[in-house]
Amino acid sequence: MEITAIHEFTVKIIHEAGERIRQSLSEKLEIETKANANDLVTNIDRETELFFIEQIHAYDPAFKILGEEGMGEPLESLDGVVWIIDPIDGTMNFIRQHRNFAISIGIYVDGIGKLGYIYDVMRNDLYYAVEGQGAYMNDRQLERLQSLPLHEAIIGINATWVTPNRYIDHNKIIDLVHHVRGTRSYGSATLEIASVVCGRMDAYMSMRLSPWDIAGGAVIANEVGAIVSNLGNEAINLEEQDTFIIANPKIHKTIIEQYVHLK
Amino acid sequence: MEITAIHEFTVKIIHEAGERIRQSLSEKLEIETKANANDLVTNIDRETELFFIEQIHAYDPAFKILGEEGMGEPLESLDGVVWIIDPIDGTMNFIRQHRNFAISIGIYVDGIGKLGYIYDVMRNDLYYAVEGQGAYMNDRQLERLQSLPLHEAIIGINATWVTPNRYIDHNKIIDLVHHVRGTRSYGSATLEIASVVCGRMDAYMSMRLSPWDIAGGAVIANEVGAIVSNLGNEAINLEEQDTFIIANPKIHKTIIEQYVHLK
Repeated sequence: MEITAIHEFTVKIIHEAGERIRQSLSEKLEIETKANANDLVTNIDRETELFFIEQIHAYDPAFKILGEEGMGEPLESLDGVVWIIDPIDGTMNFIRQHRNFAISIGIYVDGIGKLGYIYDVMRNDLYYAVEGQGAYMNDRQLERLQSLPLHEAIIGINATWVTPNRYIDHNKIIDLVHHVRGTRSYGSATLEIASVVCGRMDAYMSMRLSPWDIAGGAVIANEVGAIVSNLGNEAINLEEQDTFIIANPKIHKTIIEQYVHLK
Repeated sequence: MEITAIHEFTVKIIHEAGERIRQSLSEKLEIETKANANDLVTNIDRETELFFIEQIHAYDPAFKILGEEGMGEPLESLDGVVWIIDPIDGTMNFIRQHRNFAISIGIYVDGIGKLGYIYDVMRNDLYYAVEGQGAYMNDRQLERLQSLPLHEAIIGINATWVTPNRYIDHNKIIDLVHHVRGTRSYGSATLEIASVVCGRMDAYMSMRLSPWDIAGGAVIANEVGAIVSNLGNEAINLEEQDTFIIANPKIHKTIIEQYVHLK
């Protein structure tokens, strides 16, 4: 696989998709619900995923595609070249805020992350990495994360996980919230992951993320020394929904061991 | 007081201050703690407040100034023309993220809000209002807020208030978090207030805000029909720290009556 050519192609189609999404904001969105009333999808999510599928298959029909909106073929394994795509992460922000949403793409070969992208569409900020070649935000190389104590950390966590829930003991998360310097919640997993790889936050965790939420970010994370895993400290799962944490290496283990009690 | 002239002057000094802050990001910040380890201030907060005081007193020495960093004279009352200024709201974001912080100014005459400003420094977005003349984000007039049911609302609330605390019964806030469509937390009260006046969020609440956090936003809120009060549903207090809520008029009363139990 010619990594450089694919990287240039991916940057090009991400910017094209971003421009289409920005133009769509002046039109009326068609909004539908998916699994529940708070899980929304728009015609633009679907059109963007279709745009990517068409472009990618025109480039190489052998590429496999796993997309949030399920418009690619069913994925039976991670063998070969697999593109894992979220056309719009943060759909609720897209609908309500017209900002704070992102395109995310991870390109994996036989399950190994080779290229990762998170594109903040309205800020026009592209976070990306090529395996072994460092990570970038636009044309600026990202530094490896510097260590810091947990009590100085800013943690991305949705308020839901601080309330009783079926995944973890929320009382331990209350302890975590009290211990750290601050918490944030942006409503877009990929933009929260992007904040961690840039050192703007020091960890982000969620009880329920899908492969397309984390595939791009995980490649970028590796290049800056951020640790990604599920909340059981196992490798991330790119075939199904799971818990997730990305953290500064200094605090990853402490958060999992001292503050995460999975049910 | 010549409102139009003061408005033009205020826009000019806000943009000048913003440019100085953006330039400061390439220099090393001097960081100190204030009331506690998580309450930070930098040399740039202080220099920006001093810049505003000098500019405003050069314009009219009779103007009184209440600033977060306390570099104006002690304020004995809200009589006359009072400028209430936060030179950098979201100092932790300023330090760690180099984004997601704002300048906020409210100009009050005998306690009545006449002009309000929130300036998102890194996005270069200015939210403002002149009493009775509508509210704007840059050159776009903001629409009056449209009503929506609470279960479709996005609420700005810090995770701290979902944990046991000395201000409110957090169990009721847990109920609120479960009832609404989503929550967000940006780490800057004024940018969260700006999100509500634009309709990007539907409410924002905090147990502990100061006059400079809310003075500018309250003027803007009035022009779009957002309701501001403390959590006891009393008028906001511009002389001391208090609880605070800004909300879409459809949900303001419901949140206070059904979900806020003050201790």
